[in-house]
Amino acid sequence: MSKIKNIGVLTSGGDAPGMNAAIRAVVRASLYHELKVTGILRGYDGLINADFIPMDGKSVANIIQRGGTVLKTARCDAFRTKEGRAKAYDNLKKSEIDALVVIGGDGTFTGANVFAQEYDFPIVGLPGTIDNDLMGTDLTIGYDTAINTVVNAVDRIRDTAESHDRLFIVEVMGRDSGLIALRSGIGVGAEAIMIPEAKTAVSDLIKRIENGRKDKASKIIVVAEGDEAGGAYNVGKALEKKFPNYDIRISVLGHIQRGGKPTCMDRVLASRLGVAAVEGLLEGKAGVMAGQVNKEIIFTPFAGAIKHINAEQITPAWLKLAEILSM
Amino acid sequence: MSKIKNIGVLTSGGDAPGMNAAIRAVVRASLYHELKVTGILRGYDGLINADFIPMDGKSVANIIQRGGTVLKTARCDAFRTKEGRAKAYDNLKKSEIDALVVIGGDGTFTGANVFAQEYDFPIVGLPGTIDNDLMGTDLTIGYDTAINTVVNAVDRIRDTAESHDRLFIVEVMGRDSGLIALRSGIGVGAEAIMIPEAKTAVSDLIKRIENGRKDKASKIIVVAEGDEAGGAYNVGKALEKKFPNYDIRISVLGHIQRGGKPTCMDRVLASRLGVAAVEGLLEGKAGVMAGQVNKEIIFTPFAGAIKHINAEQITPAWLKLAEILSM
Amino acid sequence: MSKIKNIGVLTSGGDAPGMNAAIRAVVRASLYHELKVTGILRGYDGLINADFIPMDGKSVANIIQRGGTVLKTARCDAFRTKEGRAKAYDNLKKSEIDALVVIGGDGTFTGANVFAQEYDFPIVGLPGTIDNDLMGTDLTIGYDTAINTVVNAVDRIRDTAESHDRLFIVEVMGRDSGLIALRSGIGVGAEAIMIPEAKTAVSDLIKRIENGRKDKASKIIVVAEGDEAGGAYNVGKALEKKFPNYDIRISVLGHIQRGGKPTCMDRVLASRLGVAAVEGLLEGKAGVMAGQVNKEIIFTPFAGAIKHINAEQITPAWLKLAEILSM
Amino acid sequence: MSKIKNIGVLTSGGDAPGMNAAIRAVVRASLYHELKVTGILRGYDGLINADFIPMDGKSVANIIQRGGTVLKTARCDAFRTKEGRAKAYDNLKKSEIDALVVIGGDGTFTGANVFAQEYDFPIVGLPGTIDNDLMGTDLTIGYDTAINTVVNAVDRIRDTAESHDRLFIVEVMGRDSGLIALRSGIGVGAEAIMIPEAKTAVSDLIKRIENGRKDKASKIIVVAEGDEAGGAYNVGKALEKKFPNYDIRISVLGHIQRGGKPTCMDRVLASRLGVAAVEGLLEGKAGVMAGQVNKEIIFTPFAGAIKHINAEQITPAWLKLAEILSM
Repeated sequence: MSKIKNIGVLTSGGDAPGMNAAIRAVVRASLYHELKVTGILRGYDGLINADFIPMDGKSVANIIQRGGTVLKTARCDAFRTKEGRAKAYDNLKKSEIDALVVIGGDGTFTGANVFAQEYDFPIVGLPGTIDNDLMGTDLTIGYDTAINTVVNAVDRIRDTAESHDRLFIVEVMGRDSGLIALRSGIGVGAEAIMIPEAKTAVSDLIKRIENGRKDKASKIIVVAEGDEAGGAYNVGKALEKKFPNYDIRISVLGHIQRGGKPTCMDRVLASRLGVAAVEGLLEGKAGVMAGQVNKEIIFTPFAGAIKHINAEQITPAWLKLAEILSM
Repeated sequence: MSKIKNIGVLTSGGDAPGMNAAIRAVVRASLYHELKVTGILRGYDGLINADFIPMDGKSVANIIQRGGTVLKTARCDAFRTKEGRAKAYDNLKKSEIDALVVIGGDGTFTGANVFAQEYDFPIVGLPGTIDNDLMGTDLTIGYDTAINTVVNAVDRIRDTAESHDRLFIVEVMGRDSGLIALRSGIGVGAEAIMIPEAKTAVSDLIKRIENGRKDKASKIIVVAEGDEAGGAYNVGKALEKKFPNYDIRISVLGHIQRGGKPTCMDRVLASRLGVAAVEGLLEGKAGVMAGQVNKEIIFTPFAGAIKHINAEQITPAWLKLAEILSM
Repeated sequence: MSKIKNIGVLTSGGDAPGMNAAIRAVVRASLYHELKVTGILRGYDGLINADFIPMDGKSVANIIQRGGTVLKTARCDAFRTKEGRAKAYDNLKKSEIDALVVIGGDGTFTGANVFAQEYDFPIVGLPGTIDNDLMGTDLTIGYDTAINTVVNAVDRIRDTAESHDRLFIVEVMGRDSGLIALRSGIGVGAEAIMIPEAKTAVSDLIKRIENGRKDKASKIIVVAEGDEAGGAYNVGKALEKKFPNYDIRISVLGHIQRGGKPTCMDRVLASRLGVAAVEGLLEGKAGVMAGQVNKEIIFTPFAGAIKHINAEQITPAWLKLAEILSM
Repeated sequence: MSKIKNIGVLTSGGDAPGMNAAIRAVVRASLYHELKVTGILRGYDGLINADFIPMDGKSVANIIQRGGTVLKTARCDAFRTKEGRAKAYDNLKKSEIDALVVIGGDGTFTGANVFAQEYDFPIVGLPGTIDNDLMGTDLTIGYDTAINTVVNAVDRIRDTAESHDRLFIVEVMGRDSGLIALRSGIGVGAEAIMIPEAKTAVSDLIKRIENGRKDKASKIIVVAEGDEAGGAYNVGKALEKKFPNYDIRISVLGHIQRGGKPTCMDRVLASRLGVAAVEGLLEGKAGVMAGQVNKEIIFTPFAGAIKHINAEQITPAWLKLAEILSM
């Protein structure tokens, strides 16, 4: 392994709050260790097009509190082709970038994994996604902000639900994972939470509503977009048929869940992992994602990180907890 | 006119932030003037069903900062019938309530107007609606909070738009009025604002996008739900056809716009108007809405308040302003 | 009057939320009218040191939502001297800047007034200060954000006050003006509000507390820093002496009141006034502040704007309102 | 051990966001397990004065999102006396309360420990304090909200610091523990963080400022109130002497750090621990605090929880991290 002198950093996939804090930490840690650091614009797209900018302390001043990513992000089909990756490698060589930090989710790591093996190129990944659906880290960068955004939005909806004695079905992000729905659902005191990891028949939901407190007409049901019942609109239709006298409303939170100032937790996590990525590269780590598990930094091979079996976090105990609290 | 000794207060129609501050002010002002004050639950429904609760200082403690309405609200068909109103009048007589403060929007005032004339009953209305679509007041209670909610939501969406170079079409409330769209659109720095009061052909919108800054790919278009182009999804379809390479996303903000802690402005407006309503009743005002125009309290007959020609606030000058700023 | 081709813009005095929105509007309006526009850094300091940067659409992209001022600000002693102003004039001539928009408060306008007369130089001012203490505008840019910041901070303090049955004395900004205290005090439902414009003897305050609701132990008193009673600590000492058994706490909100994302209202006001300033200059306005009074744009000579007699906004009626609401 | 049929719940010590979510969870879990549940007002004070209220589902409706504590809290000297505790025990017996959940910090648990041993009374504690200074839990209820409050406040201050090129010294809570300062300091991107656990000589701080980036004049220094340098004012005086030309400002955040809506994390933690406390009591747990360590629920004897050696969380690695990031 040749000594690393210039680290490239990019963000890829959907943007997540805290990505800027992670970029800042990668830059600061590189400077601290007297390395050069290069920003790569628009994810793998920028690798292929040599869209590179040199970075220093000033480039990352006053960005820790900003949502989105100053390096911009994109999904990139060309990087899935051999030609695309060859071009990317050429550009890295030409610019004398000898290691990468890639910040993103499973798509990002899948690409990184192929490239790292193909060219024996040192890459450390950082988990930057609001979905918290990666193995090898208790929390992904952006998740804590996203669940707070959901909670604040549903608190507002609760005002209307209470005032009108309405039932609201709120759809939150999570195509494959119910973690946003589960935590935010507990956080808003939802009367029911529907997630892909737990089969909740709509008939059970109906029974639950029938058995609920008679003195409380307003209800909030949180549904992950990937729930097998088919999202908020489908759940709404089923309930309307069963409860024609209920005043049922649907709210799909949508894109507001991605943006916003990161929470303190996301900033600290991103900062810590950003430094760990640089120091990991210096110690010879490669082909791995840096994560935080039980308060410690650990490195997980890309293939392990994207396995998507976050069973630890959606246990029967958590589902039971949600049930007890929604009585 | 017999002397007023007991004022009833109700909220009706869609809930709006600041309604609680208005209720509190009505209660406090009534106590200050040594009147009894009675809360009526669920709007006109509660009038018809005699759903009354006596109120004192404690009933309204610590509610000034809460969204929604502690008196609850509903839309009520029965109050549109002669029988319903007769029942309501009987209940008021039985409970010795001799004046009403009704907080709501045009539906609320339409009902109040009929009832006030039918029974010669003193009623003062307060403009409680996020739409700001009433004559006789520069601002309705809830509007300022709603536009801030929109602005905060779109700021989040802007993070994603910037990070991905996307065009977002954001639909905000306003079936008949574009005031929420216009002010919040200026507030977020939208590239275009589409409102029912101004015919923006989609072809003009397309021209505008084509002529926009080349160095800025991300764009925000704010559309009022009542715009003649048919809401965000229709605008989106037209743009997608014209710009197949653009990454266009739709966000319908929906119900989050109604709730939340009221802003300082809404709390102060609601407090001031609540006191004015009580003092107005004591001075013999009836069949009118209390509003604030050019910093002064004025009273406008219900029929005038619901005329919906808020021409003063959506002038050509404001539309020109939006255009200049979106360059 | 020679035709204006290049407008300089600066911010001066204490920073206020919305200054960036105002800068953006000045730049956009200048570009719209095909003028050059030059940013002047650090207020009058930058004038004297020729710290100028050319501005275009990109310079002001994505700043409408940011607190502070991208042009930076400073208080500048040198501009009070004839030599300083001579240097400033020379720099303007050399850079062919032929008009100025200055954004700030009374100190800013005092300087602008002298300079404008001395050199017959066209200047339009924009009211940028959280204090709302200028004549010729109903609202200054930053005020609405500041009172919301205060309200949000005191809402937090209210949680503790309620939980512990404590009396909190909260000091807010306002050396000469009680407008922040008055509006935010009404907004938080304060039990008493102490401002320089109204002499509230501490003995009256004590009487009021003694006569207050017996069932409500927690209280919030909002004090403007410039109140003649001498700020929160002095009020606290007097009350502690009188009520030894009370649990009294002091909170001085301080610098958090200046910063933060501007509210929608402040962004719209700043945007509208920024455009008005540029168009005013083009129409030959000079030596005036652009303000908004009763929804209309008006221009007030600098000398009139800084008179500080905002009697219209702190009337006996407002003080009475505060008293009624705090029962 | 007799079977538990009626659980008393109280909050004691300083209020913390999330206490209401914890109370709600204790009530819901009790109802789920078909137990009676009794609210005890004002902490141990209410125990001694038999200030008890029966609680049901409705008592805790719509409180999960509210700061403070609906059961109120107080510090209570009488509970430190044998007589006080005897009275408390009598009241519990009379009201047939046969177990307690106490929510608070080390003072609360010290009292609970004595009482539990004296009367062999089953008590489970929940860590409710913003300081995060208890052993046996990674996070205390309220800490996550508090650090976000600090971060949001300092973000505002940063706006002013940037605009004026100022150095701000911000004092945050933490008499014995620097955890609030450390995490929030990293979160705001502070140039230096001063905490009781790490001796930072002011001379080192001066050296650091002298060696800092020359192109960045604005700086934020976060100081824990318990730092050995003596709080923000003392640090400020030392720096002013050394850097007479610097524009140095002090901000003591104070009481706003305690209140506010709890974050999602605090609501979920409080909910989970509240259920765990009830289920722990039913399984025979007593004299212990329920905490969350490495994602698992664990129970720690009171004596162990209040040891205050949270060495795990302020390690040299964290201090190094803060240093690297503040370059």
